[in-house]
Amino acid sequence: MGSKIFAPKGTRDLLPDEVKAWEMVEGKIKEICKTFNYKQIRVPDFEHYALFDRGVGESTDIVSKEMYTLNHRGKDVFALKPEGTSSVIRAYIEHGMSSGITPTKLYYITSCFRSERPQKGRQRQFHQFGIEAIGSYSASMDAEVIMLVSTLFNKLGIKGLELRINSVGCPKCRSAYYEKLKEYVKPFENELCEDCRDRLNKNPMRILDCKNEHCKTLLKDAPLMVDYLCEECNEHFESVKDYLSNAEIEFVVDPKIVRGLDYYTQTAFEFVSTDLGSQGTVCGGGRYNGLVKMIGGPDTPGVGFGLGLERLMLIMEEQGLLNDLEDDEIDVYLAPVGKEASKVAFKTFKKLTDSGIKASIDVMDRSLKAQMKYANKVNTKYTAILGEDELQKGVYTLRDMRSKEQEEVNIENLFEYIKEKLGE
Amino acid sequence: MGSKIFAPKGTRDLLPDEVKAWEMVEGKIKEICKTFNYKQIRVPDFEHYALFDRGVGESTDIVSKEMYTLNHRGKDVFALKPEGTSSVIRAYIEHGMSSGITPTKLYYITSCFRSERPQKGRQRQFHQFGIEAIGSYSASMDAEVIMLVSTLFNKLGIKGLELRINSVGCPKCRSAYYEKLKEYVKPFENELCEDCRDRLNKNPMRILDCKNEHCKTLLKDAPLMVDYLCEECNEHFESVKDYLSNAEIEFVVDPKIVRGLDYYTQTAFEFVSTDLGSQGTVCGGGRYNGLVKMIGGPDTPGVGFGLGLERLMLIMEEQGLLNDLEDDEIDVYLAPVGKEASKVAFKTFKKLTDSGIKASIDVMDRSLKAQMKYANKVNTKYTAILGEDELQKGVYTLRDMRSKEQEEVNIENLFEYIKEKLGE
Repeated sequence: MGSKIFAPKGTRDLLPDEVKAWEMVEGKIKEICKTFNYKQIRVPDFEHYALFDRGVGESTDIVSKEMYTLNHRGKDVFALKPEGTSSVIRAYIEHGMSSGITPTKLYYITSCFRSERPQKGRQRQFHQFGIEAIGSYSASMDAEVIMLVSTLFNKLGIKGLELRINSVGCPKCRSAYYEKLKEYVKPFENELCEDCRDRLNKNPMRILDCKNEHCKTLLKDAPLMVDYLCEECNEHFESVKDYLSNAEIEFVVDPKIVRGLDYYTQTAFEFVSTDLGSQGTVCGGGRYNGLVKMIGGPDTPGVGFGLGLERLMLIMEEQGLLNDLEDDEIDVYLAPVGKEASKVAFKTFKKLTDSGIKASIDVMDRSLKAQMKYANKVNTKYTAILGEDELQKGVYTLRDMRSKEQEEVNIENLFEYIKEKLGE
Repeated sequence: MGSKIFAPKGTRDLLPDEVKAWEMVEGKIKEICKTFNYKQIRVPDFEHYALFDRGVGESTDIVSKEMYTLNHRGKDVFALKPEGTSSVIRAYIEHGMSSGITPTKLYYITSCFRSERPQKGRQRQFHQFGIEAIGSYSASMDAEVIMLVSTLFNKLGIKGLELRINSVGCPKCRSAYYEKLKEYVKPFENELCEDCRDRLNKNPMRILDCKNEHCKTLLKDAPLMVDYLCEECNEHFESVKDYLSNAEIEFVVDPKIVRGLDYYTQTAFEFVSTDLGSQGTVCGGGRYNGLVKMIGGPDTPGVGFGLGLERLMLIMEEQGLLNDLEDDEIDVYLAPVGKEASKVAFKTFKKLTDSGIKASIDVMDRSLKAQMKYANKVNTKYTAILGEDELQKGVYTLRDMRSKEQEEVNIENLFEYIKEKLGE
């Protein structure tokens, strides 16, 4: 009874045809992670609120505006995870993974939750593929992480993605740069949008990322972090670029890619699609040498990225990469007519499915005519009819649905016969 | 910085070794659902609160005590799903799946959330595999659903599970039975526990399910639904038993298996393990001819089950079924020494991973000695060393990690050479 109830705004059911596409993409992700020797970790969907305060940053929109907290019996200490990295790093620390083989190379495919305004490719429950490589300061680590995701895009056949990289320095060189940036901004600070004035206090670099046109114009010639890197950060950045060039991975340097918070260091990168317009970032990542410590672990460097699967699927759909997925096919459909036949056919059905033959059987007590209609609608290679006549004779009438040829097969022999036929 | 933060009580990280076991089991589930022609659906993790009020029942502990609601900007209209069926039926209705091929055969593997007291095999975030077969009144549908899960247990090699079945009748025969039950209980109604007295009003059948020893004694000889079935329900139950017997699926009739709410009808079943003691139900299911309508759809019958994956994994672990999982193996580990060598080796690394060869490369800028130690710890078939000497000669020293044999291979040829070696 009662009125219809719909899925919450910003969530989506994946129906079987779509699931097939997702499973294909997830399969490819797992295959490539295996090739690169990254191992899967699974983390819960909710965490202590405090984790995201630290791991994402309380000054970010994500934490201050977009998080769902859980209400249970009036208590309110948990939040649905808005991204994957914080939880993975929390798990890395909790399980003492730093004492294992270094670097720790992990990947995850998980649900994330943010209460943003839903739009194309942006949902309130969405899915993220991400990797975290923990334990190495070397530029080769950054290069491997970037190479992994670049390989994934190639294997999926996606065109038109641009790799953009930058260095956001380290706390040392950043403080000097912030002075320069604030100095530059001072004369027109009041003209900046409210968000940017706020950012100037909390994470100044993010003003370069502002989408406001007036801010963009004002900041056109602002000093850039990349020009103020300390020697170590500069060398690291040069080295990352060398690795990528050597491996023939194309990239452009984009000094406006920023990560707001202190625990992000050195490399920042994005893969940007021109197909989605302004919503173009499919994958963002970088180095976070301060994060493990921030979350309560030992002082340990890390590199990682997060990739929005909804956006990836959208791009693949637009590029026609989800069209030729394998059709579901049934090997044999059993069409018994009447109660007795149905019970006999169930025994055959058991034998077939036990040996992994894709089988289907009438479960609607349909007439033969209705069953043949059904058999023509589903994609079955054979139909085995067990009507009154057949039951008396102890046979199935086996129909090859392509050639339309029919033959009689002993009830007891059907399983072996089908098995042989399928083996041909 | 900051103190350690742990995963919330009642949630668990799955670390790589455990994920391997889960992926194996999930793979088997998907394979068997494919064999039986059930298709995967994915539903969101949260829904409108009202859905569970209707689809699980507001009088149940699940809805009244154990649900997590979402708090976002003071609003509180969503809840994390405590089970899978309601969401799948909601999706079935929302997407008008009744107009497709009947029956609709769906399966899901999903997260569920209940704020119970955590104990072995029972978590606050847990995972459920379930199927829903929608559209058939036939007993053969019930039998197929039971056969599917029975096949799964067999394929996983699980021993010691008992299939218990019952019929909970339909609203028609149930109301007559409820009279009998209330009549029987009347003389000692005040001796029943508080929960049972409450159940007598809301869903009387559930008193038979009470764990309280005194209630159990009092209700030992209570009338049973199965003895009061109407002709139609009786015939349906007999038919289900016939199908199972015919297919040689063992079962026992357990008249105390109940489903509390009106929309459950006829068949109820459980697979019970003796290994977990009182926590023994691994899988519970049955027929719910009233549910689709209750949630706002057309009057449509259904059969399904839900299977707790944490408990399944626990049983499999206890039975030693998770011991022989395939080891992760790397085909070749590249061991460059020094910056220059590292960049050259990265080019080889790209070639190897591009062609799907499982490769690893030093990303720690380690000495050769440290790298050889690393190579011995990870499970690699070959190690390709590129030290100063090798770089000058333009070769890798390729070491077979089993035979300990070494040979020199031209840098440019390593990829082809390894490929050939692996093909042998």
